[in-house]
Amino acid sequence: MGLCWQEMIAELIMVGTELLLGEVVDTNSAYLAQRLAELGVDLYYVNRVGDNRGRIAGLVKQAYQRADLVIISGGLGPTVDDLTKEAVADAFGLDLVLCPKALEEIEEYFRRLNRPMSENNKRQAYLPKGAVALSNPKGTAPGVLLELPDGKAVIMLPGVPVELKAIMEDAVIPYIRRKLGEKNRAVIYSKVLRFHGLGESAIDDIIQDILAAQTNPTIAPYAGGGEVRLRITAKAVDEEEALRLIEPVEKQLLERLGPYFYGYGDEGLETVVARLLLAQKKTVAVAESCTGGLISHKLTNVPGSSGYYMQGAVTYSNAAKTAVLGVDPELLAQFGAVSRQVAKAMAEGVRQWAGTDIGLSVTGIAGPGGGSPAKPVGLVYFGISYPGGTNTFRRQFAGDRLLVKERAALAALDILRRYLLGSLEEELED
Amino acid sequence: MGLCWQEMIAELIMVGTELLLGEVVDTNSAYLAQRLAELGVDLYYVNRVGDNRGRIAGLVKQAYQRADLVIISGGLGPTVDDLTKEAVADAFGLDLVLCPKALEEIEEYFRRLNRPMSENNKRQAYLPKGAVALSNPKGTAPGVLLELPDGKAVIMLPGVPVELKAIMEDAVIPYIRRKLGEKNRAVIYSKVLRFHGLGESAIDDIIQDILAAQTNPTIAPYAGGGEVRLRITAKAVDEEEALRLIEPVEKQLLERLGPYFYGYGDEGLETVVARLLLAQKKTVAVAESCTGGLISHKLTNVPGSSGYYMQGAVTYSNAAKTAVLGVDPELLAQFGAVSRQVAKAMAEGVRQWAGTDIGLSVTGIAGPGGGSPAKPVGLVYFGISYPGGTNTFRRQFAGDRLLVKERAALAALDILRRYLLGSLEEELED
Repeated sequence: MGLCWQEMIAELIMVGTELLLGEVVDTNSAYLAQRLAELGVDLYYVNRVGDNRGRIAGLVKQAYQRADLVIISGGLGPTVDDLTKEAVADAFGLDLVLCPKALEEIEEYFRRLNRPMSENNKRQAYLPKGAVALSNPKGTAPGVLLELPDGKAVIMLPGVPVELKAIMEDAVIPYIRRKLGEKNRAVIYSKVLRFHGLGESAIDDIIQDILAAQTNPTIAPYAGGGEVRLRITAKAVDEEEALRLIEPVEKQLLERLGPYFYGYGDEGLETVVARLLLAQKKTVAVAESCTGGLISHKLTNVPGSSGYYMQGAVTYSNAAKTAVLGVDPELLAQFGAVSRQVAKAMAEGVRQWAGTDIGLSVTGIAGPGGGSPAKPVGLVYFGISYPGGTNTFRRQFAGDRLLVKERAALAALDILRRYLLGSLEEELED
Repeated sequence: MGLCWQEMIAELIMVGTELLLGEVVDTNSAYLAQRLAELGVDLYYVNRVGDNRGRIAGLVKQAYQRADLVIISGGLGPTVDDLTKEAVADAFGLDLVLCPKALEEIEEYFRRLNRPMSENNKRQAYLPKGAVALSNPKGTAPGVLLELPDGKAVIMLPGVPVELKAIMEDAVIPYIRRKLGEKNRAVIYSKVLRFHGLGESAIDDIIQDILAAQTNPTIAPYAGGGEVRLRITAKAVDEEEALRLIEPVEKQLLERLGPYFYGYGDEGLETVVARLLLAQKKTVAVAESCTGGLISHKLTNVPGSSGYYMQGAVTYSNAAKTAVLGVDPELLAQFGAVSRQVAKAMAEGVRQWAGTDIGLSVTGIAGPGGGSPAKPVGLVYFGISYPGGTNTFRRQFAGDRLLVKERAALAALDILRRYLLGSLEEELED
């Protein structure tokens, strides 16, 4: 490309003694790194340090030398252990002063919850002089933005992941976009495609030549949460131009991976399924055995889920499968609870029990116990019943109990999605 | 304390560009930090850096100034991206030389797998001059131990977690023990207490004087996942002595916070509840409205949950509450689905429906829609029915839809826990 990209360099400082004792796995820095990468901001160093005022201040000074933007997470709580603002004030020779707007928001937070505000929550309204508070919609600790005379900035965020994310999305990302825009009029625009049912290395194999040929846009595959995402990132003068660059690459990827593609960006399978159900005015009921309620939980995570979800049953015991869903005890005795036959009966039973358009069922072995050579841990059967028929599916998942539950729940949602799209393929019975 | 602690200070450097893009969550450093804490080794800084020879070398030099032991993870692979040994050699002005023993082990590894060894795997047998190879039982990259003339050491480990752990356990921990033994034997021992139902600042208020007086053991509060934990950490000559130091502090904390304390360490509320149910040979059934299956999901996350969990219902619609649980439509019309009366009827209904000892129910407004001034988003009613009676509870939660679901699910489990412990307090009806 003939354009000259002016770059922004960021550095992260993750504060918290619990991180140095290994009691908490730091997921915030992966989230922050990902968002910065999407914005085209370079990140060379991530630092982790305990709740020690002198050490935090030292790192802040070092990071400020190396980067344009320093993001600090943690140490904004109400207790005497929380020293991030003090350390930043030390690093730049600033005082801490009360921010009335921040105090008002903290007081409002407690009023809304109808709880007394404790005296030490007031500490959270003190900021290094010259800094501004960033509203925290999920908690009491406001984020803090300190712009320095040379145009660099230090941003402090609470360590609680939902609070950190909320402030990052609401205030920090728009701020970074603005700063990038001030430097030059180039944008970095990303589109994320989400896939279910194929692993990362399988996808890698299928699109190897496309990956090898990429320049602008670039394509980055990443795996996690039981699925694979491909992020297509274009650099261009504006969003329109970026989208024009992304379009043919997206098309090329979907030509090869179409059957496994299910959605874009932040939208999980449950959101895609919810939209399809609402558009088609269909209702669904779920009968869960090994997933233990996780599919219903996911389906009801989407606001407005009462439009398509009425009721579900977690039928863990054989007796419950018979009493609630009317599964014939003969079937259970002959084939076992984890079988295609029982999955079918459960799907039909739950549809009748709830009077919905669709009945979805899952029965399997989440482990660690309960497996056998014929029916190993991770074996799961699925059923989907609808006007005109019932289909069943068999899958074998790897991983521990929680991972098997998660993967089985996603697979069930994908079966529902394919049914709603009319692309459900019948599986040969085993 | 009258003892003089001779300390070993360690520092970690986690190498890998994928860590800076947020595509991989770094779990190695939590593992390393935990093992070091158990050995009584202090850790002040954890650094993360990309696959950049100059930057890695710079960090190694800095860490070597600050610490006695520098552990580097990642960048020992066979590709040109893997530059850790080169960077360490740069930092100390050393050459890389072939280690015949390491080469032999790599060749042996491929022989065992019956796979051809690729030419670039030979790179993995080159070490900074003076270093020794640490056998890798799980892969091709040997670990590397470089002892420096001043008695400090730099240890390099592969980034693949199973390989890192194997070399850490087999070689590095014995090495550290030996080095500590040369100095003096001290251990750091931690105990984590978990609390539900009180926020971090409220707990802080209650135990402020204890926190202020702490020396050894120290007490660190931290919040997350809808609860607060207190970590008590003691330094002592051995574990027994550390436990002796911790005991009175734990007792003092529990005297004040006892009603909110529910368990230790890694065990969540569902695990504590599961143990109580199994010990008392009691079964439970759950009727969920706003939590949408999350309570059942949590209860069935514990291996062996079929011992106490038989079935559950997600009754999202009013019709389902009536059809499945027998909730009187009059009650729903008069008080609304989100009411103490309906929570009571649901708890009694689900107990009868499932034939269990205990019936647990939840009905509330998860949001973002559906709230009103009288019944705002986050308002949740709970019911618990048991032989001899039914109790109901009212809570108001903050946060978005997912957070309200999570907090309501934990509150329900805590109500169940208190019932099982015989410490359920009746709530005045509103």
